[in-house]
Amino acid sequence: MTNHSYAIIGTGAIGGFYGGLLQKAGFEVHFLLNTDYEYVRKNGLVIESKDGDFTLEQVNAYQNVQEMPPCDVVVVALKTTQNHLLPQLLPPLLKENTMIVLLQNGLGAEEFLANFIPHHPIIGGLCFVCSNKVGPGHIRHLDYGVITLAEYSPNGQPAGITENLRVIARDFEQAQIATILNEDLILTRWKKLVWNVPYNGLSVILNADTNQLMANKHIRHLAEDLMREVVAGAAAFGRTIPDVFIEKMLDHTEKMKPYLTSMKLDCDRGNPLEVEAILGNPLRMAKLAGVDLPRMWMLYQQLKFIDTQNSRCQPRSINTH
Amino acid sequence: MTNHSYAIIGTGAIGGFYGGLLQKAGFEVHFLLNTDYEYVRKNGLVIESKDGDFTLEQVNAYQNVQEMPPCDVVVVALKTTQNHLLPQLLPPLLKENTMIVLLQNGLGAEEFLANFIPHHPIIGGLCFVCSNKVGPGHIRHLDYGVITLAEYSPNGQPAGITENLRVIARDFEQAQIATILNEDLILTRWKKLVWNVPYNGLSVILNADTNQLMANKHIRHLAEDLMREVVAGAAAFGRTIPDVFIEKMLDHTEKMKPYLTSMKLDCDRGNPLEVEAILGNPLRMAKLAGVDLPRMWMLYQQLKFIDTQNSRCQPRSINTH
Repeated sequence: MTNHSYAIIGTGAIGGFYGGLLQKAGFEVHFLLNTDYEYVRKNGLVIESKDGDFTLEQVNAYQNVQEMPPCDVVVVALKTTQNHLLPQLLPPLLKENTMIVLLQNGLGAEEFLANFIPHHPIIGGLCFVCSNKVGPGHIRHLDYGVITLAEYSPNGQPAGITENLRVIARDFEQAQIATILNEDLILTRWKKLVWNVPYNGLSVILNADTNQLMANKHIRHLAEDLMREVVAGAAAFGRTIPDVFIEKMLDHTEKMKPYLTSMKLDCDRGNPLEVEAILGNPLRMAKLAGVDLPRMWMLYQQLKFIDTQNSRCQPRSINTH
Repeated sequence: MTNHSYAIIGTGAIGGFYGGLLQKAGFEVHFLLNTDYEYVRKNGLVIESKDGDFTLEQVNAYQNVQEMPPCDVVVVALKTTQNHLLPQLLPPLLKENTMIVLLQNGLGAEEFLANFIPHHPIIGGLCFVCSNKVGPGHIRHLDYGVITLAEYSPNGQPAGITENLRVIARDFEQAQIATILNEDLILTRWKKLVWNVPYNGLSVILNADTNQLMANKHIRHLAEDLMREVVAGAAAFGRTIPDVFIEKMLDHTEKMKPYLTSMKLDCDRGNPLEVEAILGNPLRMAKLAGVDLPRMWMLYQQLKFIDTQNSRCQPRSINTH
């Protein structure tokens, strides 16, 4: 069995955690960092995890992709708001059979990537994980961790359970990363949106955690209305999400501990919001397919307003060189 | 010409200003007060106005409608959030031909009133005025002042320019209060909603003044979307609001000085929001007429959430005795 080399693009809550697990399991891992570069180069990575804390005293840290070696697998763990940088970041890391794994929320990233990297397998990964970066090179993994993987297919049809998926899953399993393989990336991504659209969006607009949202009967109703629009969006691409899935999401969220969504955390930190991945791209895709989703458009418009106000106060950038 | 007696229910920015002008012009005016009662009874009312400041050293002040005399005209200048009190407040003030003038925003108040006071003329008044209460018994009138008056008609048809309207307009004119008479209360109220729905609602949800809202292209678009839904609501009642009216509202708002809407001011002060008058009632009426207005529903649901959070912090009440 080959021991694949991994490049981790974005060493934060997601990339730092999963990349750390891969290195701990013996894989060769190369980490791209931005603000934490100097710190991590000297001090390595500290991962506190409910499954066991560990420290990687020596990591291959870079602040420039030109200095990184091409790898067998490139894991993209940036926020989608940075995806415009990928056309610069990825090419130096690719060799003939490099696979790209996108650990990101929302819709549209695989399609975007396939435009300029048409000859490499692209795999979408949806992380169900509570993980935060709590300091430079310091990740705290609180709960969960499973990644649902599905391969991108340029014709919009399900790619099936491919050999590429199995290869990645085997590596991840070796690193104690649980995976679920799914044959249909598009269905998988729309299903995730059933939760992400209402809760990420409304938590920012109404400045509330999931429990506060669900305790209000009007917002519980609005969340369900929004979920139904996501289901209508999926249907425009021939993907059926049953009603029982909506009920499960509502019940599950009601019973969860109070939770601040990733978009709410980004908002509170003054970071750009993943509005385009979670709302803009699905809306534009659905519109092209002839489906209008008025509440989702309204949520998008409201979030764009907040995002503009937010980034006016605290602009952020990533070092691309 | 008879000199009518007036009862003013709610002596705030609206009731204090217009009631003050009526008393200054020589009308017998009786003011119902709540928190300012003791102060105004001793010190009277001070009105600073761009049209000339004046002080009423002696006013007929009450904190209990039982002590007030029946009057020829009862002016309701409460916030609509207090309208549930009207069945207790109004009957002691009525004699055979008493007319009721509702200086309030939104929809549904005349219909509500007509249920328990079916035999008195009810006139709706829409104030286009910038006026604030700045201290006990102290009103500051900043700009504008015209009131559009239209009479309620139980059959839902335009009442026309009635003799009742002319009588009120003559009194108001004598008190330097400009009026516009309109034959169709329902059309008048829906037209006012074209502005009130987007700007009152979004200013609260997005914590912004009118200029901040209009400076964002997404929100300008959303405001227009919401206006079109209001127009669709009016159409369900056979009332036509032309496209050019929407364009006028958008242009006008873009050119206005930054303005905090009344609902935003209520929100900032921790007062209950006029969500039912401005959104809930129009939505339920439109729904009964078979028209669904998804963005307005979403705005309603969001505002109900904010209103609950708001009133949890700072409950307010009016003394009904």
